[in-house]
Amino acid sequence: MRGAVLYAPGDIRVEDREDPKIMEPTDAILRLSATCVCGSDLWPYRGIEAVDRRSPMGHEYAGIVQEVGSQVTNIRPGQFVIGSFFASDNTCELCQAGYQSSCINKEPIGAGGAQAEALRVPLADGTLVATPDLPPDDLVPSLLAASDVLGTGWFATVAAEAGPGRTVAVVGDGAVGLLAVLAASQLGAERIIALSRHAPRQQLAVAFGATDIVTERGDAGVAKVKDLTSGLGAHSVVEAVGTQESMLQAIRSTRPGGHVGYVGVAHGVELPGTELFFSHVHLHGGPAPVRRFLPELIELIWTRRIDPGKVFDLTLPLEQAAEGYQAMDERRAIKTLLWP
Amino acid sequence: MRGAVLYAPGDIRVEDREDPKIMEPTDAILRLSATCVCGSDLWPYRGIEAVDRRSPMGHEYAGIVQEVGSQVTNIRPGQFVIGSFFASDNTCELCQAGYQSSCINKEPIGAGGAQAEALRVPLADGTLVATPDLPPDDLVPSLLAASDVLGTGWFATVAAEAGPGRTVAVVGDGAVGLLAVLAASQLGAERIIALSRHAPRQQLAVAFGATDIVTERGDAGVAKVKDLTSGLGAHSVVEAVGTQESMLQAIRSTRPGGHVGYVGVAHGVELPGTELFFSHVHLHGGPAPVRRFLPELIELIWTRRIDPGKVFDLTLPLEQAAEGYQAMDERRAIKTLLWP
Repeated sequence: MRGAVLYAPGDIRVEDREDPKIMEPTDAILRLSATCVCGSDLWPYRGIEAVDRRSPMGHEYAGIVQEVGSQVTNIRPGQFVIGSFFASDNTCELCQAGYQSSCINKEPIGAGGAQAEALRVPLADGTLVATPDLPPDDLVPSLLAASDVLGTGWFATVAAEAGPGRTVAVVGDGAVGLLAVLAASQLGAERIIALSRHAPRQQLAVAFGATDIVTERGDAGVAKVKDLTSGLGAHSVVEAVGTQESMLQAIRSTRPGGHVGYVGVAHGVELPGTELFFSHVHLHGGPAPVRRFLPELIELIWTRRIDPGKVFDLTLPLEQAAEGYQAMDERRAIKTLLWP
Repeated sequence: MRGAVLYAPGDIRVEDREDPKIMEPTDAILRLSATCVCGSDLWPYRGIEAVDRRSPMGHEYAGIVQEVGSQVTNIRPGQFVIGSFFASDNTCELCQAGYQSSCINKEPIGAGGAQAEALRVPLADGTLVATPDLPPDDLVPSLLAASDVLGTGWFATVAAEAGPGRTVAVVGDGAVGLLAVLAASQLGAERIIALSRHAPRQQLAVAFGATDIVTERGDAGVAKVKDLTSGLGAHSVVEAVGTQESMLQAIRSTRPGGHVGYVGVAHGVELPGTELFFSHVHLHGGPAPVRRFLPELIELIWTRRIDPGKVFDLTLPLEQAAEGYQAMDERRAIKTLLWP
């Protein structure tokens, strides 16, 4: 099969790779219908995360089950399925509490590389969720979005306790941040402030339900959010970047007693304890337990109540993955969908 | 009046100070029945917090209203009242949300110094809560405890979402940690693990409802808590120290999806973002909004369902405040009550 491999920072190649095989009786093999490039793929692409060997890339996927191991009982060949970036058994105490991305038996999907024609998914029964039927083509991008970027934005918004009567601010206008806006809207937030200085992203934020756009960053962005919230700060703030500046901006934009939901993979972040103490915020986040939300998200997409696939503003054949990475790196694209 | 003043690290003196007066029409003046020394008073006493001038000390108080300003309507002279270390209006949006210690009009009580015979309390209507009647003498220590140390332990336990079916671990065996054990028990926690290596404190923890005692600290303490919780960590962890080591111990003792409630005033703490991200914990804390809990705590004490005054294992006349500080500093006493 063909698959994308990172050779070195900035050097993505699509090449022949070995077809995935059933290795454990709980595995499934998928023929992928669609895959995509994640903001977190840009960390190693940009050399901010070390690349110490040739790495198969990608961890977002939707596709058709080709084969299952002998112990797989819920998932059948021929089904269209979506899974998250961590395989999880969905039965352990942590999964049952809704933290499938901390499952005691979790396995990262990234190792196999989902930017490819096919993928081995461990713990298939726990990990994969099937759609009611084979989807029409136009739903595939939105279903693919549920695999990570929508699920991550959704978790951030739930972690920030967005809901009726609450003002939500979203720091970060990447695909996760934009889908956090959509999630906040679905969760009934009264007011949704998107922090963005890029016109196409502002437009998408508004389409997803943003009521206010703030273009300022850092302390100026904090001041603007406070201006919009009687000087107190937002009830709920989503952090979807992962830098020191964005984390502090999120914390400082939150009122005392409010909630910060953070899903940007923290890089070099050190939170000052005294400031956090006196901020009085709730802080929750981490790798999104997307599996918790998949049934609900698939239902919302299947019934066409949400259209998260709009975040894909660049669609390319898998063979052109390198251009897909470059466009996102240069912020020419919000998110790149790849057709295998 | 007589009052305690910190001249320099280790140098507490009780001396004549000016009697407090009504300065704002919302003030009350209390004749104090009891006051005490807080763990946080030890930070400047030990020189860890800078002492740049002679500081009146103390912020925990219970006593009888002597005089009120012209705009005070709820509180009357002759009432026995308790208040928290921050005066709060109890009407602003943040107070109404339960975060009175972030009240938009808050004023610290510490400036006046509650280790004294009398105290000016700003925003008396919002800050003070009266007991149903004048209390019998034996209830005064417990009512005094509600002013800070009980309210702080209680808030930490609520922030950690202690409750039925949950295992709670408490890091810190000072008075706040011990009263967090009591709070967890009152909130119905299934199992309460107290981390303590001091026999008298262990005994008090057990009296307050601890089901397990762990004597190990740091990573060994984390391992022991995990041993007791199927390898997962506790659902709820209270941090009641405020150092880098204790914060990390608390976070690492918490299962993914669990809750850390932290009330130790953070000194020099820097939380590593990546570890926090992957820990999947909820983090909430800060200066306890004691006012939120005061009516409930007074009711529990008044009806003799809880006896938090047990944390006072040293009782001295105010004139001997210096000995009270020294005993706590040397860990000869858990907490010192001072009779004015």
